Amino acid sequence: MGNGSYERLERRFARIADLNAAARTVRWYSLTYGPPGGEAARGHQLATLGGLAHELLAAPEAAEALAAAEAEEPWRAANLREMRRQHTAAIAVPAELVEAKARAVSRAQAVWHAARPRGDFAAFLPELREVVGHVREEAQIRGEALGLAPYDALLDTYDPGRRNAEVAGMFGELEAVLPGVLDRVRGGPKPPGPAGPREGLERLARRMMAMLGLEERHVRLDESAHPFSTGERDDVRITTRYSGPPGEALMGVLHESGHALYTRGLPEAWRRQPVGRNRGMTAHESQSLSIEMQACRSRAFAIHYARLLQEEFGAEGAWEPGRLYGVLTHVEPDLIRVEADEVSYPLHIAVRHRCETALISGALDPADLLGIRPPGPREGCMQDIHWAGGSFGYFPTYTLGALMAAQLAEAMRAALPGLDREVERGNFGPLVGWLRENVHGRGCFDASSDGLVEQATGRPLDTGAFLRHIGSRYSG
Amino acid sequence: MGNGSYERLERRFARIADLNAAARTVRWYSLTYGPPGGEAARGHQLATLGGLAHELLAAPEAAEALAAAEAEEPWRAANLREMRRQHTAAIAVPAELVEAKARAVSRAQAVWHAARPRGDFAAFLPELREVVGHVREEAQIRGEALGLAPYDALLDTYDPGRRNAEVAGMFGELEAVLPGVLDRVRGGPKPPGPAGPREGLERLARRMMAMLGLEERHVRLDESAHPFSTGERDDVRITTRYSGPPGEALMGVLHESGHALYTRGLPEAWRRQPVGRNRGMTAHESQSLSIEMQACRSRAFAIHYARLLQEEFGAEGAWEPGRLYGVLTHVEPDLIRVEADEVSYPLHIAVRHRCETALISGALDPADLLGIRPPGPREGCMQDIHWAGGSFGYFPTYTLGALMAAQLAEAMRAALPGLDREVERGNFGPLVGWLRENVHGRGCFDASSDGLVEQATGRPLDTGAFLRHIGSRYSG
Repeated sequence: MGNGSYERLERRFARIADLNAAARTVRWYSLTYGPPGGEAARGHQLATLGGLAHELLAAPEAAEALAAAEAEEPWRAANLREMRRQHTAAIAVPAELVEAKARAVSRAQAVWHAARPRGDFAAFLPELREVVGHVREEAQIRGEALGLAPYDALLDTYDPGRRNAEVAGMFGELEAVLPGVLDRVRGGPKPPGPAGPREGLERLARRMMAMLGLEERHVRLDESAHPFSTGERDDVRITTRYSGPPGEALMGVLHESGHALYTRGLPEAWRRQPVGRNRGMTAHESQSLSIEMQACRSRAFAIHYARLLQEEFGAEGAWEPGRLYGVLTHVEPDLIRVEADEVSYPLHIAVRHRCETALISGALDPADLLGIRPPGPREGCMQDIHWAGGSFGYFPTYTLGALMAAQLAEAMRAALPGLDREVERGNFGPLVGWLRENVHGRGCFDASSDGLVEQATGRPLDTGAFLRHIGSRYSG
Repeated sequence: MGNGSYERLERRFARIADLNAAARTVRWYSLTYGPPGGEAARGHQLATLGGLAHELLAAPEAAEALAAAEAEEPWRAANLREMRRQHTAAIAVPAELVEAKARAVSRAQAVWHAARPRGDFAAFLPELREVVGHVREEAQIRGEALGLAPYDALLDTYDPGRRNAEVAGMFGELEAVLPGVLDRVRGGPKPPGPAGPREGLERLARRMMAMLGLEERHVRLDESAHPFSTGERDDVRITTRYSGPPGEALMGVLHESGHALYTRGLPEAWRRQPVGRNRGMTAHESQSLSIEMQACRSRAFAIHYARLLQEEFGAEGAWEPGRLYGVLTHVEPDLIRVEADEVSYPLHIAVRHRCETALISGALDPADLLGIRPPGPREGCMQDIHWAGGSFGYFPTYTLGALMAAQLAEAMRAALPGLDREVERGNFGPLVGWLRENVHGRGCFDASSDGLVEQATGRPLDTGAFLRHIGSRYSG
């Protein structure tokens, strides 16, 4: 059976996967060990790797094979669906526009890096305006090709199938509840968290990774200016930073370990194929938050965490679990998103979501982003690099991921009644096993993150589990 | 003027350069930080990067543009010459043969790694035989395409323009002299060299790199099982190992720093172009040996080296310069090539050269490599990975590089009379400046390493300067 088209496509997409994997290694190298003087050389390499991957994906031969290919077996059919989706996205936007946007983004990011420390919005504005112009055009063209509204077409690149109507509805529900919770439980300035010498922190970070089942044979931990995770199923890399508060270095490791577990758990048989990749940024963030927020800021984990601190740092590093839990769940609104607690965080995202939908529709001019309640643009619209990078439609996935993590956690608790006692003992086997079966190992088998979450929890994504979680954790 | 073909070729070769650069980063990552479990994934990436680079190089569009292109300006003309050379080499050998050899090499290297520690030649022999078979075929086909004898066609891939008749002649001259020198100056077991704690060694290594003018902004030092160097002009990486004798870690850094200086000094204007690369492996080895052997095992450097050791390790680490020089120039024949002194080394290479020319011609069967004087194959024909890797015609470049380093050093001393006094003070500015002007900055402007050495010294490569150097350094 078959005409060989599907098999040819598998070979083509394996090469595309290799190019993307090499690009991830070059980018990782840039952010960890690469000498700064080599940045331009690496920029050329990334442009060439991305350009060749795009050519392979958009080639007429690919179009012909995609039209002719057939696949009955469900995983092959899902793989073919993902191939078609990627091809459609790749040919939707003309190469000139892609390149013009890439150049504008490159300039805007450089200006952002230089202008942000001085809070110089005037320097940044013309660059941002140009990026927004390109993104509007892209959203328009992509939307026409996919039959989607412009902002939906952007959302779709980060979380395929996600539509703004649902997002706006869910964010509205969060905004109706979370400010009241904040008023009730806000706790003033952040208390100092666990501390210890750099070496001990790193050793502890590695113990936590081992506790989660991340094997040294396949997973690295390095240092970088901002924590991130990247890599392939068998070659995963996470980073953290030790320059900030020591406790944050560890929470960074736990967060990135959640991402790493997802990558590490992707279906082995589908390596180098589209169906073997993660189900988008909402699903990815749900995995980092399943580990960091749901599991590791719980009362149960505070008990194990206190034990680990005692073992690593002795009496001086000791914490009483109740007090540690207080630090892990401390709530206080702040202007900076990346330092926000899980109650404030969705409100940061709601602001950005409102701004970016209006920027894309044209209802808001970039100049009006200084509509200013923060003391300056450093704490306001210039705090994040996303928009300078042309990433519109990305911010919502942070909060959608938080909703998904909560919804998964509820289903997991129902399936594994003794879970908290295991976490208390530092045994993450059942928890990770459940995620592996219900999320990681499915790769892109489901057509959307909603399909994935429905399969695992019985219903599409909603705010119910998250609001119950907030209600129960922050009942004080 | 021009029909645009040359400009199109520059763009094509820049992409090829980017693919090769990305592959070097993936390989570097594998040998330094990459988790072992990711080896197969990285193997796929390297195969795809190499395959795409080959397709770009061998494409019919490249052939047409190469036929049509014109370049008057000398550097452009040299660039075009190198492009044509690479294209000719790429289309000479059928893809099926390249792939069959790659598979055989991959298996043979794996078997070599497993069988060498046990000295199990019987396990290795069938693999080696298959590799030799593929290389013979490749040498035949490549030779026919280039109008060269089979072994010359192999030599040409590592040192373009080099022919075996000259190599055999020069090796004969060395073999006539060196055994006598060895008998006269051999000094028994190696005396222990400088020592110090790992951290201090690394700090000292970085000071030596700075002394040579390698800037942290552009050059990294890492650790790996075997020292190596790689990278691009603006993003150079060297490694050393600290597991062996401490002094060897430092000599490894000096050797690799010589390679790094070459890469770092390549012509800035010709980055990402064939003419901007190094002039082959003989020229490359001449640069590592210019630093390690010619400059840093001299009496002059022993004085500065002793000062550095004293500064770094204090009284306990102190060395009297004369005794240090004795260690740096200690001579004693040994079965292991990589540990050989500069008098014995060419004799190791002469043995391998004789074996590999006979293996390629068919005069020697791989089974007869156990013609055995060494106690076992671990110390004999299985000690090096080169043949398992299909690298025939590579070994000679080690010794040709030593000859070239000596010949360059003579010319440099004539041009810079006060050189030793500068080296004594740790001032490498004049020395590196001379190499930059006469070697590094010329890239592939000269058509061969003989052309390069002739331009710098007034005559093609010969054994004169090397034998004078050996005679004067080992006059004892």
